[in-house]
Amino acid sequence: VKPVAAARPYELYYWPGLPGRGEFVRLALEAAGAPYVDVARLAKSKGGGVAALLKALGRVGPAQPFAPPFLKSGALVIAQTANILLYLGPRHGLVPRDEASRFHAHQIQLTIADLVSEVHDTHHPTAVDQYYEDQKPAAKKRATAFLATRLPKYLGWLERIVAASGGTRLVGRRLSYPDLSAFQLLAGLDYAFPKAMKRESRRIPRLRALAAGVAKLPRIAAYLESERRTPFNQTGIFRHYPELDR
Amino acid sequence: VKPVAAARPYELYYWPGLPGRGEFVRLALEAAGAPYVDVARLAKSKGGGVAALLKALGRVGPAQPFAPPFLKSGALVIAQTANILLYLGPRHGLVPRDEASRFHAHQIQLTIADLVSEVHDTHHPTAVDQYYEDQKPAAKKRATAFLATRLPKYLGWLERIVAASGGTRLVGRRLSYPDLSAFQLLAGLDYAFPKAMKRESRRIPRLRALAAGVAKLPRIAAYLESERRTPFNQTGIFRHYPELDR
Repeated sequence: VKPVAAARPYELYYWPGLPGRGEFVRLALEAAGAPYVDVARLAKSKGGGVAALLKALGRVGPAQPFAPPFLKSGALVIAQTANILLYLGPRHGLVPRDEASRFHAHQIQLTIADLVSEVHDTHHPTAVDQYYEDQKPAAKKRATAFLATRLPKYLGWLERIVAASGGTRLVGRRLSYPDLSAFQLLAGLDYAFPKAMKRESRRIPRLRALAAGVAKLPRIAAYLESERRTPFNQTGIFRHYPELDR
Repeated sequence: VKPVAAARPYELYYWPGLPGRGEFVRLALEAAGAPYVDVARLAKSKGGGVAALLKALGRVGPAQPFAPPFLKSGALVIAQTANILLYLGPRHGLVPRDEASRFHAHQIQLTIADLVSEVHDTHHPTAVDQYYEDQKPAAKKRATAFLATRLPKYLGWLERIVAASGGTRLVGRRLSYPDLSAFQLLAGLDYAFPKAMKRESRRIPRLRALAAGVAKLPRIAAYLESERRTPFNQTGIFRHYPELDR
């Protein structure tokens, strides 16, 4: 993984205060040692804050994002988490060079994105824009079904991919951006569903080893210790509601 | 849009009997005039059927798909609808050549995919793998919230993208794969939520004109008249439950 000397730092736009989908992008930028500005976490006096995010989001144009996260790289504006990683991967050596590996990496990333959406829906099953407290009975049903069938299916699939790729990484034997996302995925699931994940862990030894290895990468280890890392909390995708775990 | 003479026809793997996510891929293949085999709809005696799909899905390897649709192109196996279109687009002139347009097209496609998942969850809010009939009260809540806020937000965004791109297409002024998906999206929404879509239509004149234009493309018009086109029904993503419309 080599840092690329960018003409200007990337600008990452994401909601401050929660790791959310933005964190998958941050981990790639940090692993690459790429200079970036986390715009909404920058002081308002320096042109940052939520106001700067909303202003950029509201700008009408062909590349207008539907939602954060989005990344500015020079004149390019790229939205959708997996799309941003598709862009960053080849620029920072975070994906192999061959075509098959690139589509394979993106396929894994998109499947992780699907799983992340299903995690979100465990606490927001009936209305994305209403409070969890107003949809608790449906959330209990959704979380129960998620933990019983969907979570084991996704994790088992990821474990098989690691095994088939040589046993240590998701794409071949070197670090790629889906590995970073898998680390974040497991960290989030451990936070949200500690009981269920304790049970699942026996079945995903390779995925667990992969995630532990990502946490020890020098740049990632330094990042996780820094103030740039946002801890999980009850406003993000991964939330710990004990009544939804089992 | 020029057809590319492929060494072998593509092999598309998707559940037979429902348009689902596979239809977004079919529309691109049909618009390109690309030869393909719709494996699960092929006779079992010719190596097709659901058995062939399940066999391919169960094959363990690094590129193992999580779920259909997936496409075989020579030795490549590509899963995830948007990823397949990312692959097909440049090969068949269904996306502009410049980098910005390609990431822009993919961003739109991924946002359409998010909307498609939200449509699915209107009839499956609490358990992906249980019957609609067993989650009707939550479905009513989810559909109500979807039609009130999410659907207008997504469609309004798509309409603005068309306006900002020159008024006739989603990416610049020529046909690209997100246009084909937008056609299918509106067709599915019209089937599932005719009342809500009648209201929404006034606000999306450019998107409506775009979709009508796609339906008249010679290859697409011929496809829509053919037996290869699967009509919407109550087993797919877009289902018409009158009690969920309003």
